[in-house]
Amino acid sequence: MGASPNPAKFGNRYLEALIKAGFKGRLYPVNPSDGEIMGLKAYPTVQDIPDPVEYVIVCIPAQHVLGVLDDCAARGVKVVQFFTAGFSETGEEEGRRLETEMVKKSREGGFRIIGPNCIGVYSPAHLMPYGPTPLLGEVGSVGFISQSGGHAGRVIGIGLRRWIHFSKVVSFGNGCDLDSVDYLEYLAVDPDTKIIGAYLEGMRQGRRFFQLAKEVSKSKPMIIWKGGKTEPGAEAAKSHTGSLAISDNIWTAVLKQAGVIKVDSLEELADTMLTFQHYAPFLGENVAIVAGLSGGGGGESVSSTDACASVGLNVPPFTDETRKKLKPILPPAGCILRNPLDMGGVGGVLEILAKTMETVVADPRIDVIIVNEHLDQLLMGLSKETLNEMNDIFIRVREKKPIVIVSSPTLGGAETMSLEKKLADAWVTVYPSLDRAARAIANMNWYYRFHRGN
Amino acid sequence: MGASPNPAKFGNRYLEALIKAGFKGRLYPVNPSDGEIMGLKAYPTVQDIPDPVEYVIVCIPAQHVLGVLDDCAARGVKVVQFFTAGFSETGEEEGRRLETEMVKKSREGGFRIIGPNCIGVYSPAHLMPYGPTPLLGEVGSVGFISQSGGHAGRVIGIGLRRWIHFSKVVSFGNGCDLDSVDYLEYLAVDPDTKIIGAYLEGMRQGRRFFQLAKEVSKSKPMIIWKGGKTEPGAEAAKSHTGSLAISDNIWTAVLKQAGVIKVDSLEELADTMLTFQHYAPFLGENVAIVAGLSGGGGGESVSSTDACASVGLNVPPFTDETRKKLKPILPPAGCILRNPLDMGGVGGVLEILAKTMETVVADPRIDVIIVNEHLDQLLMGLSKETLNEMNDIFIRVREKKPIVIVSSPTLGGAETMSLEKKLADAWVTVYPSLDRAARAIANMNWYYRFHRGN
Repeated sequence: MGASPNPAKFGNRYLEALIKAGFKGRLYPVNPSDGEIMGLKAYPTVQDIPDPVEYVIVCIPAQHVLGVLDDCAARGVKVVQFFTAGFSETGEEEGRRLETEMVKKSREGGFRIIGPNCIGVYSPAHLMPYGPTPLLGEVGSVGFISQSGGHAGRVIGIGLRRWIHFSKVVSFGNGCDLDSVDYLEYLAVDPDTKIIGAYLEGMRQGRRFFQLAKEVSKSKPMIIWKGGKTEPGAEAAKSHTGSLAISDNIWTAVLKQAGVIKVDSLEELADTMLTFQHYAPFLGENVAIVAGLSGGGGGESVSSTDACASVGLNVPPFTDETRKKLKPILPPAGCILRNPLDMGGVGGVLEILAKTMETVVADPRIDVIIVNEHLDQLLMGLSKETLNEMNDIFIRVREKKPIVIVSSPTLGGAETMSLEKKLADAWVTVYPSLDRAARAIANMNWYYRFHRGN
Repeated sequence: MGASPNPAKFGNRYLEALIKAGFKGRLYPVNPSDGEIMGLKAYPTVQDIPDPVEYVIVCIPAQHVLGVLDDCAARGVKVVQFFTAGFSETGEEEGRRLETEMVKKSREGGFRIIGPNCIGVYSPAHLMPYGPTPLLGEVGSVGFISQSGGHAGRVIGIGLRRWIHFSKVVSFGNGCDLDSVDYLEYLAVDPDTKIIGAYLEGMRQGRRFFQLAKEVSKSKPMIIWKGGKTEPGAEAAKSHTGSLAISDNIWTAVLKQAGVIKVDSLEELADTMLTFQHYAPFLGENVAIVAGLSGGGGGESVSSTDACASVGLNVPPFTDETRKKLKPILPPAGCILRNPLDMGGVGGVLEILAKTMETVVADPRIDVIIVNEHLDQLLMGLSKETLNEMNDIFIRVREKKPIVIVSSPTLGGAETMSLEKKLADAWVTVYPSLDRAARAIANMNWYYRFHRGN
């Protein structure tokens, strides 16, 4: 809807992305000028399409949408998704009126509305890309709902880079008909979705949402990032999706009561979803830290410990037995045989690394192992093959206990990507900083401690 | 010193890095086996070197270092740098004894010691690389001192990726002779150094350090990251550099009194040094936020505002005149003509972008402009040329007011790097998240407000 011979138009970009992504359903461009668009016959209106139509994506200006909805009703369409903006979020009477009218038409016409003012649905299993971006990630278990199309896009982008595998993502903008509660209800019963993330700015049906969240979070971890936590931010949210402000204190308290994880940034959101994807269910707060794989691990040991302690994770001393076993494995100078363990630069010696990791993972005091690996930096001194073999050692540890990797990106590139991909495939998360790793692990601990206590 | 025919040995890696980096001074490998190493004649001891020797890098085991120092004294060496570890940081009597003996020998022999247990000096102006890593960045105005060789290495690595240009960096490990105060004294009077960063774990001469810091920070911004801020972290610091714990509250209070910026992570340290490199001197807390260059800027507007408000920056409304001027420039639907400004996806239309930015920069209420550009994401829909032209627009704005870019890395790569390099060359910082941009700007504001008030 709103496809056009001008390739820069959003209607066309949606169509092109669907074609490029290999979407399996039939596609019908709708454009008053008729003719062909990207090799597909175009129709002047939805009514002119000869076959049954289930899903309509609307990218035309706001003033024309009501007529389109009449066409959709006449053709028995089930869902209409509106990229179109210019409704209640403008704060103007006309926008609000149009939106009310749209909802009325959806009730009468028996179809549902996604949006308006949104990018819409991303479903890699259906080869349905996210709006005008044709990229598809692997199919997975993370469902994500967002009042912001941009944030959903960035979450999907981070997912492509760090292999968060999504079941379904929806950005629903103003949510004039289907709203956050409806999408949450859907993901709650969706068998493909095991973890639920959300970016929300407001809440029209607060009580219903929180009751639902409390139920859902018992079986599916829920992670919510709330935009507009400051007063100026809440003011901006009003212009964005017409959301009314809820005080951050109330949100925090209510989410906590509902056993829902509250995060404070896009990065924490992505890290936490990834952590659940790779490690759930897992509860354990005793961390072993391994540093200094390529030398200079002392400072890292200190700041890693700070990062863990700041979020309530413990870095307990190794047992005497562990220390006794480590002593003959590691060279005496440069290594610090405590927890954090500073390998003093010998991390690339595979035999030493393997024995060290076997010893650490066997320590009964340790629940989870954090390795400061810094792939970009190691690639300056070691071959990719050696790094792959080092990662194989970590992947073997993963079979016994959760192990996570911290690798701060510097020069980066394709080699680092392929190393990280192999780790991700073995359910080992790579975090760009220890602070972020520690925060995500602490979030997971909070969740399982809360729900075990209930 | 400790060069060897085995290329994996650290002595050799130091030598190789110096050769690769093109170090201009003369290099003399020292190895008992004599012969040639990497095309250079090797000498069994320092005493055997026929020419005057100024600087000795020691990479041999701890038990042999005292004899080496006698040789150094005999040859009138000025500085001895010890990669060698196994001294006071081991917590054992023998290590402490050796270190005391080394200091005694340096006093008697008239030379100074860097380290032990350190990587040493990085000086791009002298083509002197950082330990075994042969990479050299551009020469610049940021001096950095570190008790951790690993952290200094990562700071240099981030500098290579994000173009922090260093004057000198030194990792000094245990600092048995030259200590943090000495290095700070040096950087204070070094004409090439205009900004001073530090990673510290402890402090042997606390009073002297803070008095000096108070003086120095009046003319050169000082940014300090302290490891061991939690109790477990302080415990780890003791094993690393033998540093005694100082409570984080005391550090925070004393640094604040001295007008020194305290940061809490490697990322914040790097961001803040970069911000001073690009924008100092600058004091201004009124931010314009530009979002939605490629669509979906609403959520970003909200969370950007949250990020600014959380660190005390203002996002004031534009003047009526600015809003009046913006109205005919930007399309009505999808754009939000407030501050934050949501461009509704038309950021790639150069004429609109140029006019918009001219209007925003002219607003008298605005001190600094934050643009959510997300280069990786934009590269999916726009050509590199278009992005370069967009950046040219931002660089023109930079001539009038500070402008910063937020670009969250996703798939990344060489194209993004070259786009970012051009921005960095024009003194425009690219931050990976808005939270980090806001924090760094707030740190700079704090510094100039403090010192203006004095």
